[in-house]
Amino acid sequence: MGIPPLRWIDPPEGPAIALLDQTRLPAEEAIVTCADVPALVDAIRRLVVRGAPMLGVAGAFGVGLAAWRGDDVAAAAVAIEGARPTAVNLGWGARRALAAYHQAMTAPGDGDDQQRRAAQAAVAQARSIAAQDAAASAAMAQHGLSLMPERARVLTHCNTGALVSGGEGTAFAVILAAHRAGRLQQLWVDETRPLLQGARLTAYEAGRAGLPHAVLADAAAASLLAAGEVDIVLTGADRIAADGSVANKVGTYSLAVLARHHNVPFVVVAPISTIDPDTPDGAAITVEQRLPEEVTSLAGKPVAPEGTPAYNPAFDVTPPDLITAIVTERGVAQPVTACTLRVLDAGQAIAERNLASAYVERWEP
Amino acid sequence: MGIPPLRWIDPPEGPAIALLDQTRLPAEEAIVTCADVPALVDAIRRLVVRGAPMLGVAGAFGVGLAAWRGDDVAAAAVAIEGARPTAVNLGWGARRALAAYHQAMTAPGDGDDQQRRAAQAAVAQARSIAAQDAAASAAMAQHGLSLMPERARVLTHCNTGALVSGGEGTAFAVILAAHRAGRLQQLWVDETRPLLQGARLTAYEAGRAGLPHAVLADAAAASLLAAGEVDIVLTGADRIAADGSVANKVGTYSLAVLARHHNVPFVVVAPISTIDPDTPDGAAITVEQRLPEEVTSLAGKPVAPEGTPAYNPAFDVTPPDLITAIVTERGVAQPVTACTLRVLDAGQAIAERNLASAYVERWEP
Repeated sequence: MGIPPLRWIDPPEGPAIALLDQTRLPAEEAIVTCADVPALVDAIRRLVVRGAPMLGVAGAFGVGLAAWRGDDVAAAAVAIEGARPTAVNLGWGARRALAAYHQAMTAPGDGDDQQRRAAQAAVAQARSIAAQDAAASAAMAQHGLSLMPERARVLTHCNTGALVSGGEGTAFAVILAAHRAGRLQQLWVDETRPLLQGARLTAYEAGRAGLPHAVLADAAAASLLAAGEVDIVLTGADRIAADGSVANKVGTYSLAVLARHHNVPFVVVAPISTIDPDTPDGAAITVEQRLPEEVTSLAGKPVAPEGTPAYNPAFDVTPPDLITAIVTERGVAQPVTACTLRVLDAGQAIAERNLASAYVERWEP
Repeated sequence: MGIPPLRWIDPPEGPAIALLDQTRLPAEEAIVTCADVPALVDAIRRLVVRGAPMLGVAGAFGVGLAAWRGDDVAAAAVAIEGARPTAVNLGWGARRALAAYHQAMTAPGDGDDQQRRAAQAAVAQARSIAAQDAAASAAMAQHGLSLMPERARVLTHCNTGALVSGGEGTAFAVILAAHRAGRLQQLWVDETRPLLQGARLTAYEAGRAGLPHAVLADAAAASLLAAGEVDIVLTGADRIAADGSVANKVGTYSLAVLARHHNVPFVVVAPISTIDPDTPDGAAITVEQRLPEEVTSLAGKPVAPEGTPAYNPAFDVTPPDLITAIVTERGVAQPVTACTLRVLDAGQAIAERNLASAYVERWEP
């Protein structure tokens, strides 16, 4: 990828967040520059920036932006978190940056200087989330590789590569690792209606990486599975409940049911930050409903007759019993249960507390 | 429907076949006039006219067109049959018109007069197929109604109404009957990628008929089923093998697997002419592969990067054990087995032989 999906711009040129507009890829590499939080919230809603890990990074930088501007930082964090209700990383990133900001504000110092240092702390926290994300990508890729068959024909949904991550992504990082290890025979890319992140973005990333790939209408996946052309299904996750239920791009649950019917492993790849211990199960996950026009129009032109109602959930929820394994940067939960997830999560929680203090000490002395 | 999907134009204005261009609906009601068989074959390939029963009608009129023009009628029937390899009705309709033509050619009479009478016989056969189709629609609607729950929430795929039939269609005729009987609570319309026959055509027909309906991305159907929002899935069929395997628009098999997983009845509605006793099972069905551009482009604009390969089957095949029932104009096959289908088909074969002689006697004396 030539252009990073997100770039922080420091004062005096900024403060601002420059986003590669993912709604216009692959036709155009346009930049959307957000100079305040409402602009960022709008960009997040419009999916200019998207994908669970990258939303964590964007949420954190958003708090940094509010801090640099002297806005109400806590209110900004709430606004950012509310931009998309299902993506847990968004609020998680915003809250982590807010915590770094508050910690810096309690340190001794006078007004302006303290404010500036606190803004820097929030931005540093965002940078550290991006850096951790890159490290997590690499670790997920290695853990995921252990589940990949030889000469694997992989089916994936939506977009889970470098566009959504500080690193090489989640499921896509595993696919890249398999390719480098000479173990990827074919990548099947669900086009991922309504917004076609698969056909637009995953095909773009797969083409650039030189992967053998083909796109398909989402509803054609079943016949590929029936024909024995798929060895493993790999997807990302937007939120994982404590019981292992996975909210991800609409169509994921469909693939999980189909994979089970055809006896093909269905594997979710996501960073620990996607696990939300406060959401007990799938029923407790709020699923974002998006505008009917995403389904009833195409490329701005109406497809269905004007006024046709639509059912347009952004996500669906896959219960843990349909998931063969969840791959995280700290290891693999298999089988997927509240217990196997808690073990991974607890390790991470301790590691993160240490890491957070270490970062503050190292970068914000 | 104001404009019929197909209209035969007699000489001297014709001979020609006027087709309502279904690729441009609902935005535009454009007519494509086919003055020879190559033009008709092209229109069939481009899906200007489509849907199993209507293809039977179109195939028969195509033979009538060749006969009126004095073309090689047998060669025309072969060309028409080859326009789309999966649709059994196409060849069936062409062959029936060809038989009527040949029969008239063996009757005593001189050259030109005999040729004209034979062309009229082929066209009359096409008209009778359309008329039988309308009667079959009505009968399927009544048989199908017996399987409909009260206050049914129905999920359907692709387009199966008056645009594809001499009557009110197949699955859509059942849905209309349920609506008239006050038993339709909601119609969920799969958009049906890649060509969006659901969002474009079924939404158009549902809107005109005043049905409560909403469209959805195909991959969102699974979450509707999981939420208990679907009481029955109804689809049409393009070809039914002797064992009850159903070839239909890609995505149908996906719905059948999902319906089974959620314990929801999955019912296919199709005329007897869709059953092909010469195709023993699903493995013997040729599935048409269509151009990658249907997936990689939208409304003529590229979506995926240029040159992205695509897997784009027009159909998939659903095995009989996933099908709750097949509704035909002669009754319901339930369970779906070679035996229950043969019983329906045998009755039809006898009825058709009688009908064919009666038609020739009545209309072509």
